[in-house]
Formats: sequence, C-alpha cells, structure tokens
Amino acid sequence: MAERPLILICNDDGITAPGIRNLIEVMNELGEVVVVAPDSPQSGMGHAITITGILRCDAVSIDDGPQLEYKCSGTPVDCVKLAVNEVLERKPDLIVSGINHGSNASINVIYSGTMSAAMEGCLEGIPSIGFSLCDFAWDANFKPALPFIKKIASKVLAEGLPQDVVLNVNIPKYIEGQEYKGIKMTRQCRGNWEEEFDARQDPRGRGYYWLTGKFVNYDSKTDHDEQALKDYYISVVPTKSDLTAHQEMAQLRAWNL
Amino acid sequence: MAERPLILICNDDGITAPGIRNLIEVMNELGEVVVVAPDSPQSGMGHAITITGILRCDAVSIDDGPQLEYKCSGTPVDCVKLAVNEVLERKPDLIVSGINHGSNASINVIYSGTMSAAMEGCLEGIPSIGFSLCDFAWDANFKPALPFIKKIASKVLAEGLPQDVVLNVNIPKYIEGQEYKGIKMTRQCRGNWEEEFDARQDPRGRGYYWLTGKFVNYDSKTDHDEQALKDYYISVVPTKSDLTAHQEMAQLRAWNL
Repeated sequence: MAERPLILICNDDGITAPGIRNLIEVMNELGEVVVVAPDSPQSGMGHAITITGILRCDAVSIDDGPQLEYKCSGTPVDCVKLAVNEVLERKPDLIVSGINHGSNASINVIYSGTMSAAMEGCLEGIPSIGFSLCDFAWDANFKPALPFIKKIASKVLAEGLPQDVVLNVNIPKYIEGQEYKGIKMTRQCRGNWEEEFDARQDPRGRGYYWLTGKFVNYDSKTDHDEQALKDYYISVVPTKSDLTAHQEMAQLRAWNL
Repeated sequence: MAERPLILICNDDGITAPGIRNLIEVMNELGEVVVVAPDSPQSGMGHAITITGILRCDAVSIDDGPQLEYKCSGTPVDCVKLAVNEVLERKPDLIVSGINHGSNASINVIYSGTMSAAMEGCLEGIPSIGFSLCDFAWDANFKPALPFIKKIASKVLAEGLPQDVVLNVNIPKYIEGQEYKGIKMTRQCRGNWEEEFDARQDPRGRGYYWLTGKFVNYDSKTDHDEQALKDYYISVVPTKSDLTAHQEMAQLRAWNL
C-alpha cells in the first residue's frame, strides 16, 4: 500500500452516535477516513435497501477531525452502496461499521444494520469489519475497547480477509477497573429472540403493538460468541455471505423431489 | 398430525399481490391457512424489524377462500413474529412465504423480505419455505409453478426440515408451452449486484439518487441456483441461519490476535 489506506466508516445508530465518533477517532490514526452514515437511527434494519424511494447524501461537518463526512437518508446498506459507487474516488482498503450501541452477537447478526453494512462491504470485495459494544447506553464507555479495535483493523489492513468473509466483532460492556481478557476467534451462538408483544390501544381505541423480547441462548456447547463475551473476551466471528446449508445437502437430496 | 396442518403464509409484496393469492390457493388444499402479510409492498426489506415505531395488525377479508387473513403495517419479519406470538392459537406446522414477484436466488437471499420471513420462521423452530418466481410482472403466470410448490410443501409437512435450515425455492419465469424440467437441490451462486446510482435534481435543485443495478454472476462453477434456473429447473437451496465461516476459522485463528 503506497499511499495511506482509505477507510470507509458506516454505522446504524446514525452519524452523530458516540459509537461512530469513537470509531472515527481510531481510524484517523490508521488512514484517510471517509464517513457515510445514516442521518437518523437505523437499528434493526438488517440488510434492507431503499428501492421504492429516493436517497439523499450530503456532506456534513460534525467535529474538527480530518475525516470527510456524509449523512445519508437511507439504510446502512444504502450508505455502503452509495459510498463505494458515488462518494469515494477509489475502492476503499477497509470498511468498518459501528461501533454499535448494543450486542450483535449470536442471531443478532441477522437483524443488525451495523453488520449488514459490513456484509455489504464484503460483497463488494472489500475487507470489512463490524464492531459492537454490548452496551445500549448512549454514554457507554467505548474507550477501553479502542486499542483492540485498532489492533483488529490493523491486522485486516495488513492481511486482508478470506473471500466472502466479514468479521463480526463484539466487545463486552466495560466493567470499571476490569481489563478485557483479550480477543477470541469464535463461532455464532445458537439462539433467538423470544418476543413478547406489548398490545396497547391508541387514543381512538384502535389496537397496536410494540415489539419487545428477550434473547434466549439455545446452544448446548460453550465454544461460541456469547460465552466469550460472558468470559469478558472480545469476540470475533468470521461471518460469510454464502448461506447454503452445505452439510444438510445430502440428506435433502435423498428426498428426490 | 391428527388435525389438519396449520399453515402460516407471509410475503413481502403485500397481502393483495397475485403471488401470495396463488400461494394461498395451493395451501388451502394442504391445511388450515392463516395469512399475516404486509399491508403494502416491503421488497428489499431484508431482515428488518420495527423497533422504533408501532405495529398494526388487523383482520381483513380479501377473497372468499377459507383462510383467515390479517394485514400488518410492519416488515415481513414483523409479520411472522406477530403471527406466531399474537395471532395464531398454536404453533404452525409450516410457514410459507411468497410467491415473490422476482428472483431470490444467489445473493438476493440476503436482501429479500420474502426469504427473511421464511428465515424468521426457521428461527422460531418451524419448518419454513420461501417461494419466488423469477418474473417481476404483477400479472406473471404463477399457475405452472403451483404443482411443484404443492409437492415441496407436502414433502416438508411430511418430513420436517433439518434444524436451523430453511428452503429457498426459486422458479424460472414461465415460457409459454414449455414445461418445467423438474426440481434441483442446489447451492447459492456467488454473485452480487453492481450498482449504478441514477443521480437527479429535485424541483428545488437539490440532488438525490435512485438505486439501480444489475446482478453479476461471479461463480466459476455451474452447480448453483442461477444455473439450475437458466436450465429451466426449479431451484431449491437449503439455507441456514448460522453465518459462521467455519472453514476459514483455522486460517484466522492463526493470526493469534
């Protein structure tokens, strides 16, 4: 890499979220940074794209750092598509998404706008990483995680990533005075959200719902991301875009449909 | 199964789309049908869920079939969550999503509301299938596909599906007078959308974009869904919710982060 690496930053909590501001701070140490991020929160948008409406993307200045920034009216995946195809003058060397306010471990990877943005980068053939802190608070303490984020991003800049693989990095909520134990390369835990809809009535007497729920770990083993996080390790799950259930193929082919 | 199987139907094109109306017709032959589907088109919503707004879900009568129907203001995944947790009195025996107007083969599986609804069913532990016809037309000819859809759904009702596996069924656009060649169990093709943003100015002179693009097949082999469809076979890809790149794990662990 002759010139300084070009790093694209996206997220799903919106361009002003503390998580992305912390990520920008670290990435400014590693390369030329361009931010293309949603102008409003886009949590839970998964891999949604905007096909029935228009997209806005406008330059914006949020702090006095060296990065260039653009706010976009679309989803996290729209941001990456727009950045790579319209905003950036060359293909970025790295795409980082986050730091998400809240866990994207286990099945959250599927619902996560943060991880979908990183996955989209991977689909574009660019080494990509999603970072999440398991702390929903707006004023969460991101600082102790930053050296680990820098280490992982530096390694990916130096080594690249296997084809069609993106990294899902989750960081435990920081406990005051307790140092993180290190980084664990692990696998996605089997689990899911069990919903409890909160049914209400509007002032006109018409019913509506709020989606709520709690995460349930269904995994019978302990070699997974949820356990690594519980053990206070930073969890890295190599995540892929080929969803084919290759292992189950023979069993299903025997159906002779 | 002592009683008639309970079948939940969802889609992403909206409850009035011809694709879902055709699917309802077939499923009425196989069991008790309940439809919970979006009240408006939700294509490209991926695995998005509604967490910052409310959800409406109201009974509706669209034709004179025996099915019960509900239109929902949310995404396809919201529909499945609401159906399983609030609308249905017992766990359904099968969830079918579609018939989508347009292909969900290859990487489309990631963007697809139709497939995300089916994946959500799978996450709830219910045998689930997504059906798509590779024809975007509102008046596409679904009829020749129906016997195949019935065959696949019947087989899944009889056999179940492996844990954490959902079927992604794609059907070629029907060519008048040419019979489908059969069903192929295959894998997700490597491919992606190459975007071409259409940049315009609004009447006030402010810029905006429309997302457009074309699918590009990056796969060097031919044992995949895109080829099966090209060969006029109905493609069935067993698709899973564990996105871990297990094969690349050893290589990445050697980084010793």
